Parts: sequence; structure tokens; C-alpha cells
Amino acid sequence: MRDDGANSGPELLLTLRRGAGAPALGIQVEDGLREAIRAGRLRSGDRLPPSRTLAHDLAVARRTVVGAYEQLVAEGWLEARTGSGTFVRRALPGLAVPASAAVVPAAPEAPAGPGRLRYHFFPGHPDLSAFPRAEWGRAVRAALRDLPDSAFGYGDPRGHRELRVALAGHLARTRGVVCRPRQIVICQGAVQALALLVRSHAERGAPRVVVEDPYLPEHRDVLAHAGADVVPVPVDGLGIRDESLVAARPDIALVTPAHQCPTGVVLAAGRRAAICRWAQESTALVVEDDYDAEYRYDRAPVAAVQSLAPDQVAYLGSTSKTLAPGIRLAWLVVPEDRLERVVAAKRYADAGSPVLEQAALARLITSGAYDRHVRAARRRQRERRDALVAAVGEHLPDARIEGAAAGLHAVVRLARPVGARELVAAAREREVGVHPLSEYRADPSPETTGVVLGYGALAVPAVREGVRRLAAALSEVG
Amino acid sequence: MRDDGANSGPELLLTLRRGAGAPALGIQVEDGLREAIRAGRLRSGDRLPPSRTLAHDLAVARRTVVGAYEQLVAEGWLEARTGSGTFVRRALPGLAVPASAAVVPAAPEAPAGPGRLRYHFFPGHPDLSAFPRAEWGRAVRAALRDLPDSAFGYGDPRGHRELRVALAGHLARTRGVVCRPRQIVICQGAVQALALLVRSHAERGAPRVVVEDPYLPEHRDVLAHAGADVVPVPVDGLGIRDESLVAARPDIALVTPAHQCPTGVVLAAGRRAAICRWAQESTALVVEDDYDAEYRYDRAPVAAVQSLAPDQVAYLGSTSKTLAPGIRLAWLVVPEDRLERVVAAKRYADAGSPVLEQAALARLITSGAYDRHVRAARRRQRERRDALVAAVGEHLPDARIEGAAAGLHAVVRLARPVGARELVAAAREREVGVHPLSEYRADPSPETTGVVLGYGALAVPAVREGVRRLAAALSEVG
Repeated sequence: MRDDGANSGPELLLTLRRGAGAPALGIQVEDGLREAIRAGRLRSGDRLPPSRTLAHDLAVARRTVVGAYEQLVAEGWLEARTGSGTFVRRALPGLAVPASAAVVPAAPEAPAGPGRLRYHFFPGHPDLSAFPRAEWGRAVRAALRDLPDSAFGYGDPRGHRELRVALAGHLARTRGVVCRPRQIVICQGAVQALALLVRSHAERGAPRVVVEDPYLPEHRDVLAHAGADVVPVPVDGLGIRDESLVAARPDIALVTPAHQCPTGVVLAAGRRAAICRWAQESTALVVEDDYDAEYRYDRAPVAAVQSLAPDQVAYLGSTSKTLAPGIRLAWLVVPEDRLERVVAAKRYADAGSPVLEQAALARLITSGAYDRHVRAARRRQRERRDALVAAVGEHLPDARIEGAAAGLHAVVRLARPVGARELVAAAREREVGVHPLSEYRADPSPETTGVVLGYGALAVPAVREGVRRLAAALSEVG
Repeated sequence: MRDDGANSGPELLLTLRRGAGAPALGIQVEDGLREAIRAGRLRSGDRLPPSRTLAHDLAVARRTVVGAYEQLVAEGWLEARTGSGTFVRRALPGLAVPASAAVVPAAPEAPAGPGRLRYHFFPGHPDLSAFPRAEWGRAVRAALRDLPDSAFGYGDPRGHRELRVALAGHLARTRGVVCRPRQIVICQGAVQALALLVRSHAERGAPRVVVEDPYLPEHRDVLAHAGADVVPVPVDGLGIRDESLVAARPDIALVTPAHQCPTGVVLAAGRRAAICRWAQESTALVVEDDYDAEYRYDRAPVAAVQSLAPDQVAYLGSTSKTLAPGIRLAWLVVPEDRLERVVAAKRYADAGSPVLEQAALARLITSGAYDRHVRAARRRQRERRDALVAAVGEHLPDARIEGAAAGLHAVVRLARPVGARELVAAAREREVGVHPLSEYRADPSPETTGVVLGYGALAVPAVREGVRRLAAALSEVG
């Protein structure tokens, strides 16, 4: 399949930089194409190479090229013609006329990653169609009606007080988190929380930050960009290895005890205790990323590690898995002795988060609507989880499913390693998006022993059909 | 007046750290008081010193102490008794019981700075009571109705495309800004925009950033915290001295050409051209902070400097002066050759801003409601500006008013220098809040030659009465 478009478009001279400091590949592809058009190397009416061909030539994921094409179509540089491909637009927007920027039609949003494949087992999303639009709208209206004028001024950089009070109660009740509202810093998503933690430490030198291996590559990039020296420590069947963690002598240890990201392992009680003990004896900070704790299906949730050592553990949660990532609301519970520095980092990062989202979420929590929404989402996701487990049992009888007791994703351990790129390609052929476990390793290998399957955004029939197609893909590459 | 409370409260041992890296004084006061209560040094029922006394003892602004008291009242540590002062609360919240944090009653928001004095000429705010709550609510509802599900996922770190398209047209039309939507990065207020610009440069070493002297101290702190080496360059009657700017050899020059902050001087045409020429010949970036450009009263606005040199000038605007700071929406137009790095900085800072605010603002702009709101605000602010000029002419005939052609503040140049602290204190006695020009200097002197008067949040009668009282205060200290 890789050759099908090799002769069907112009040769494109795009040079991509890789490694630390290089911009995202998608942006480089976009910029390169735009520059090629601007410089006349690509002319109106020229046909672009099929995305698969260009992706192959550039050694990038096909979705990277598809995304770049979509962006340029939205900006008016390219046009997609059904059935015949992507072309440089015939009537190009004026290249130097400012007003023309405004008349580029507002294209529909470029579909986000998960939308491009019919069965995309994307682990980062809840079901975006379940975002409670009506309740959120009511909460915003109530906030607009009730907030005093002063709430629209520059506020406390920690965030809107009503939300911090509501969260302190909610987190105590649901996760055993021990805190006062003053210790809560509202952040723009977990990404900002991680960046603030690193930066608040940076005046004492670049902090060594332990992450679990495997981990989310995006988090490693955020930590490194904020100035951390990132040290991966292996995860086994009981969670992160506490002895290796201690031996790494980190300033900060970022862990996901409730449902390790991405393996789904629950951190064993003995290791929780050992890590807390170590933190109490050192000056290190443990950061507990409780990213999907709301989704636990089979037994009572274990309380947050923060409850064992509130002076040593910062607790991080968000609405990205319960409501939607686009709301960009996260909360960081900070031990008292770190609080000033983290608040200063937030003040100098953006002077505080927008008030209306915060006031809306506070209302949803205090009215009980947030709990009701989470319960309904948990019921829905449990059905999907059950469908996933059943479909894996049916179509992949040799595989083992792990980490399915909680969260919005599970890991399918394969009977034998397969080539990761080959698997992704074979799955894509069948409109299935999968993420090999090897993508999450500090030292990625070309073969993978498992697949991370996010089911949060797929309805039950799609989960079943997706697993069936995945099994077919595996049989091809296995 | 300074002695009136010296014997009326306990001695408090609070040690404040000052200088680079120290937390805000208000936070230090809060923490010190809380610690004193926790450690039993202050007991239930103890009377706190009057804020004036404690402020004097600690050599901080009285509003710093008032703010700390209010925060602790809100948290339940202190209580205010009308007519008799502030006391440690009799029924203290449990100090170690997590759930108690939630039962601290949600106190009304601590009043923001400008609210505490009846005539506070605060230069940082528009009229918060004029925030268009109904229109904003309608725009949010429309966004909730129309946005595709994918908009609630992780989006483009530059921000919601509809808003970037709307802004490109709006900025071209109203400010002559030359840009494409792709060059616009939506930020959490100007603070984040400045931090991103510095950080996007930091991988090539700490950037030298020229700021205008006088300047906003908050901006200097943000720049320095992001890693900049901040170099103040003097402003005279024609704006920042271009020769000094060039001689400082900065990597980044942060300027306010339309209405210098805080003097109100308009940057002279010759200097604009000289700065653009220099930027074209060097590798430096000019950052144009167009913070109050929407308010121009007497003549057609000068186009943004960005329009002269779009490849050398980054343009910064926000809704903080047109709508409200609490919305936290700003936009940064970035020259193409810096774009990748700034977008990466935004991605690693918070992965993008919340979608609903952005979609709401996009709707307000495209429907024309934003322009209507700005026009109405400009009419209202012009009346206040006129009242300020008239009142200064009447009550301070020896003073000269400057920078009143635009913006939400002007500078009153005094007939002779006065002690800055004495002036602030004498004005406060009369319920007037003023900000001496000396506070904005890189090298603050104890005497000030001018006063910055923000009238954006004061109605016409309050402007008049405030200036009358300010004149009385001046006659006392002058």
C-alpha cells in the first residue's frame, strides 16, 4: 500500500527537525507546505501527494499529514476534492493583504484525533458527546446572575474561592483528600499543574522528576520543557517500584496510584506506605495524578495516597475525564510548605484562571449535579468496559486484559510481541485506531507486547466491532 | 493617626522576607497569622491589631493587611465585629479534620482592591459593573448549542479557530494589524502572553528584555520570573527613547506605543519608525502591548506599530480593559518565524485555553455585539475622562494633566514633588486611593512628581469628588 501514491503528486522538499526543542512534526509539515506554496514551489491546482505517501516519505504518522492538510484546507491554502485528492487552492488567499485573513471562511473545526477513525481506541478522552451542555449552561447563567462585580476583576491567583471550598469538600468526601480550600490551586488542566510544580521548584535548580515507565509522553515533554530532569522508573504488576524510585533520589515523584497510566495497575498498599515513608524522611514531593479516579467499577476505590501523607503529597485532579478536556479545569492540592511557591508560579504564569468556568463548576458540585453526572458516566463506561472485556475474550482468546477495573482504558497483553508500526497500520486499514504500549515506554522498542485501548469515547457496538477488527489486524501482523 | 492602635492588640511576631523570590507580602502576612493561631500564639477571642497599626509595624501597605484579614475571615480563622475590630474566631475550624474544610461557610468574595476605597483611582480596571452579563450569557448558550463535540476535546494550543479568524478580521479593521489567524495565540491574559514570549526565547539563553521606565511593576515581575533579564529604558515626552532602547541591545523590547503605561504618552512617529528599522536590522522582537487601544477619545487612533513591521513586531491585546480581567482572554499575534516556538510554549504551559470563553467572544465579535459594547464603553469613559480633566482644572489649577487623550487613566503632574507615602496616606484618610507615579519607576524615589489616576471604574460624580478630596490631601502634604 505504501507505493500507491508515489507518482501521483509533486515531490515535496520538506525537511523536518526532530528531537528536543524541535516543534511538533505536524506544525513543521504545515509550515513547510505553506512555505512551498508561498515560494511558488507548489502552484494553484497542483495535486498534493496522498497523505499516506507523504507520511511515508517523511517518516511521520499519517495522521500528522492528514492534520496538516486539514489545517491548510481550513486556512484556504488547499482544497479537498471528493474522490480525487487534495489540491493547492485555485483562488489562493492574498498572501500579503491583511484583511484577507478575515475572509477565509470559518471552516468547520478540523476533527480532533479521535474523530478521524471510526473505531479509535483513544485513551485520552471521555465521551465528548456526553458533556452536560444544558447543565453547564444553567450553571454559567446562575454564575452570571449571582457573581458580584468584583469577581470579574483580578482575583486570587489560586482561583475562585467558591470552587476551592466546594472542591475541598468534594475531594474529602470522594477521595479522602485532606486539605483546606486555601491549599487548592485551580489550574488550566493537568498540564499547567505539572508545569507549575516544576517551575515552583526551579529556583533551587532543575528538579529531578521521577515518572513511571511506561508513562504519557506528553507529560514527559511538559515536565522537561518546564526545566525538569526527567527520570523514568519501571512499573511492574504492583505499580512503580518503590526501591528504584527512592534510589533515583528525585525532588519530585509523579505517580498514578489509583490506575497507573497507561498500564492500569493499582499501586500496592505496601508500596504506597513505603513511598510515603520515604517522602516523610526526605524533602521530596510526591505528586499524585488522580486522573481517572471517578471511574472505578468493581470495588470501593482506595483513598488517595495524599490522605496518608498530606504534607508530602500534592494531589492533582481535573474535569478532563469527567466533563471534557476543553473546559481546562484542574485542581492541585499543595502541601502548606510548598504553597507560596506554587501560588507565585501560578500568579506569574497567568495571574489566575477564568472565573466563569470556575463558578459554574462550583455550582455543579454544590448542587449535586456533578455527582449525578459522574455516576451516570460511570454506569455508561462500565457497560463499555464490560463489552471490551467480553470482546477481547471472544476475539483474542490468547490475550490477557489488564487494568480494566477502573478508568477509561485497559491494556490488552498480547500472546506474543508484534511490530508496533505494522499493527497500527493494519488496524488503520480497518478504520481502527490503537496505541501500542511501546509508545509509552521511555525506551520504545519496534515491537510491542500490549495495546492500550481507550473505550471512553466508543459506544458498546463500536467497542465490539473495533475489537473484532483489531483481532483481524493482529492476525495479519502476528 | 499611626499610633491609634498601638496598644489595642497583641504584639505579633511576623517576619517578612523581601526581594527577589520572596512570596507576596500579603501571602506572608496571611501565613504568619495563620501560623500564630495554629501555634497558639494568638488565641480564640484575641483582638488583632488595627490594620493600620500592623501595616505600620510591618512597613507594608495597609491594604495588604486588610486583604490578609479578609482572607482569614473568609477562611474562618478570624471574625470581624462591627465597630470593635477583628478577633480570632471563638469557634476555630478544626485544625486537622479534613471534612471541616468544607463546612467553612462560603464567605462572600473578598472585595477586590478597587472596592475597598470609595474613590479608588485604580488604573488596572474597566468598570466591572458594565460587564455585559446578558450578552455574554447568550453567547455562551449559543456556543453550547452550536459547537461540535470535538470542540470539547484537546484542541489546537493556539486556541479556538473561530475566535482566531474573528480576531484577525477585527484587529485588521480596528488596529491595522497584519496577520493570518494561524499567527494568533489565545492566552490567559497579557501575563501569560509575556511569560510565553520570554520562555519561547529562553532555550537560547535568558533574553534581555527592555521595558519602558516607568512601567507596570507586575509586568517586570512576570518577565523576570519567566527568566528574562529586565532592562528599563526611560520614557520622555515622545515615548521610549529609541536610542537608549537600541543601545541596550535587547532580545525583546516591550513597548506601549498607543498610550504609554502609565504616563499616557503616544510614541512619536519618528521613534516608531526608528524602532521598526532597528528591529528589521537586528534579530530582536518588538512586543507591542496595545492594552487600552479601544479607548481613544479625541482623534483617530494611530495604527498599531505591528502594521509597520509585521515580521518584527508581536502584537498583544486583551479583553481585560473592554470586558473584564476575570475573563482572562488575551491574544498574541506572533511573527511567522517565532510562531512555532511560542505555540510550543503555550502547549507546554497549559495545552490551550478553555473553549467556551473563546467561542463566546468569537460570537460577540462576529455578531457586532463586541463593537457595540466597546463603543458604549468609550462614550461612558469619555465622560469620565472629561470630568477628570475638568475637576483637575478646578481643584488642582497648578497641576498639569497628561495622557488623557486615550485609555482609562491619566497622569496628573504636580506643581512640586511630594512624599509618595504621605500622599497615599493623606488620600486614604479621605477614602481616596491613588497611585504615585514613583511606584512605577525602576528606581522608586520617596517623592513623586505625579499621580496616576485610573477613572475606568468611577462614575462621573465619584471622579469629581475624588479629585476634590485628592486636592485636599495634596494641600496637606504639599
